[in-house]
Amino acid sequence: MQLKEVGEFGLIDLIREGTIVNPENIIVGIGDDAAVYLPGHRQLGLLTTDMLVETVHFDLTKTTLWQLGYRAIAVNLSDIAAMGGNPRHAVVSIGLPRQFSVEQVVELYQGMKEICHEFGVNIIGGDTVASPRGMVINVAVVGEVEPVNLLRRSGAKAGDLVVVTGTLGDSACGLDLLLRPGWEEYEFAWPLVTAHLTPRPRVSIGRKLAGWGATSCDDISDGLASEAHELAKASQVGIRLYEERVPLSADLLQAADLLGKAALDYALYGGEDFELVFTIPPEISAELLAAELPFTVVGEVTEPAAGVVLVGRDGQAVLLEAKGYNHFR
Amino acid sequence: MQLKEVGEFGLIDLIREGTIVNPENIIVGIGDDAAVYLPGHRQLGLLTTDMLVETVHFDLTKTTLWQLGYRAIAVNLSDIAAMGGNPRHAVVSIGLPRQFSVEQVVELYQGMKEICHEFGVNIIGGDTVASPRGMVINVAVVGEVEPVNLLRRSGAKAGDLVVVTGTLGDSACGLDLLLRPGWEEYEFAWPLVTAHLTPRPRVSIGRKLAGWGATSCDDISDGLASEAHELAKASQVGIRLYEERVPLSADLLQAADLLGKAALDYALYGGEDFELVFTIPPEISAELLAAELPFTVVGEVTEPAAGVVLVGRDGQAVLLEAKGYNHFR
Repeated sequence: MQLKEVGEFGLIDLIREGTIVNPENIIVGIGDDAAVYLPGHRQLGLLTTDMLVETVHFDLTKTTLWQLGYRAIAVNLSDIAAMGGNPRHAVVSIGLPRQFSVEQVVELYQGMKEICHEFGVNIIGGDTVASPRGMVINVAVVGEVEPVNLLRRSGAKAGDLVVVTGTLGDSACGLDLLLRPGWEEYEFAWPLVTAHLTPRPRVSIGRKLAGWGATSCDDISDGLASEAHELAKASQVGIRLYEERVPLSADLLQAADLLGKAALDYALYGGEDFELVFTIPPEISAELLAAELPFTVVGEVTEPAAGVVLVGRDGQAVLLEAKGYNHFR
Repeated sequence: MQLKEVGEFGLIDLIREGTIVNPENIIVGIGDDAAVYLPGHRQLGLLTTDMLVETVHFDLTKTTLWQLGYRAIAVNLSDIAAMGGNPRHAVVSIGLPRQFSVEQVVELYQGMKEICHEFGVNIIGGDTVASPRGMVINVAVVGEVEPVNLLRRSGAKAGDLVVVTGTLGDSACGLDLLLRPGWEEYEFAWPLVTAHLTPRPRVSIGRKLAGWGATSCDDISDGLASEAHELAKASQVGIRLYEERVPLSADLLQAADLLGKAALDYALYGGEDFELVFTIPPEISAELLAAELPFTVVGEVTEPAAGVVLVGRDGQAVLLEAKGYNHFR
């Protein structure tokens, strides 16, 4: 069915079903001028937004609309996770080429609803407009955090350990694979492509980090090198990372070999992993690191004059460039 | 200066100045993963978003970037006004063609900062990305409202009066004028073009309406006809409007004459006036309407079976079509 057959208001009626997964604090959802919700008692408000533009952030020949919807929400939840917060409500703006079908929009929303259901996030409003020259999705998410659980980029102290969740570089390598015809025949390619298309935000870990003693946190959207610089700048510290400690998956190592690329480069400069990098005093972290959590100590916080450096396998420290994905370059 | 010379992070540094106009409830503004704010005591949260796409919502040969920035915020504040709320914080996503200059982005933000300053709204975050095939702006605004001041579309009762603020149709006629070379020579054209390019949201009136006894409210973004249908549908009532009561400005009458169009059509079907339409019991409204406020009674709420009708100057009632601007038609 074509969009013009149902019109803007007909489309909204089709989208609305299943958007409220946590009804107890919703007063008005989709369908009025603005959504109305009840803020949590003694919680701080969090607000974040991300825009995805066709041909820049996604290629509709390489992602399904379901995956794209999932991802558009995921990148915002990752920002909330990096603040130690609980994502609560989302508003979704979509700019659609006129040839889009109703079924395609419904599929996009199914991906969004899936991840929203998983993380208890309500879709409470949005805007649906025409965009003749390519699809655009913008999501804004309101979250909440108790003051005691708030994590900023600016609290790292010299002597803290630098810790990351999961493995790094999988997403960027997955993107490279997607752009290479025939990737489907390699078993190791599938988890990497999945990491790129439908990243899982680290909300439950983010919620606990401040309580565990973490002093700063960032999500890894632009590669570990860029995020290390962000933490160093915000906290006014130096950071020393160790090449041999950067967690790389076995799948990444195989894929990088196939592609003739350095696996470490994907981790340092690739980005879009949506893992967390955080700092934590060493005396606090011992017990935590012994627990079965997906944590790897990749370095330590140093005095600001030491800069952001990477210690290679040969023991030599080199200044680490803040390069990562940068729009307008 | 070109965007690629300052990069994404350099641009953010340039934008940040003057974004926080109400610092007392801001904990983290632009520059972390998400913004952090202190919600107001005993307030409900409001959330709205609007996307503006180049060639669909604006034409960069017809608007300055300052005006576009002003307007992108204004349309969101109007949604908050229609709920009886106080706009608080905005996040701004912009998708920019690579040939944009730094100075152009700064001008866009100056327009946004102007209206945000006027209404006490903080810009606390956003996303800045490349958009090769045309500019896109998305704004999301968090507002607050005391439960007693909340206005929905759904409270209109048979017997209520239907009231609008200001004059209607100016904005749509202003757009028609903008598309006609030589409009600048007509003095009456300027206020209409201004109404289109930099609409002033009715926040202060919206804040008072519930206290004055209003039973429902909507902002006029798609023309009075479409909004009357929205109120009627949400409140499950009928609405009777009177042609001769629809407030039309003297400028609109002159311009419509010049353009060979019906002034009333602009008011009914033109949209983007960002005035408010509300309903209020007649016994409450007498004193209010005697006060010097920009209110005009345009009709009354009826039983649902009566539908949404327009009574012409000949006294004949005709069913009013819900046509207005509809994407995907």
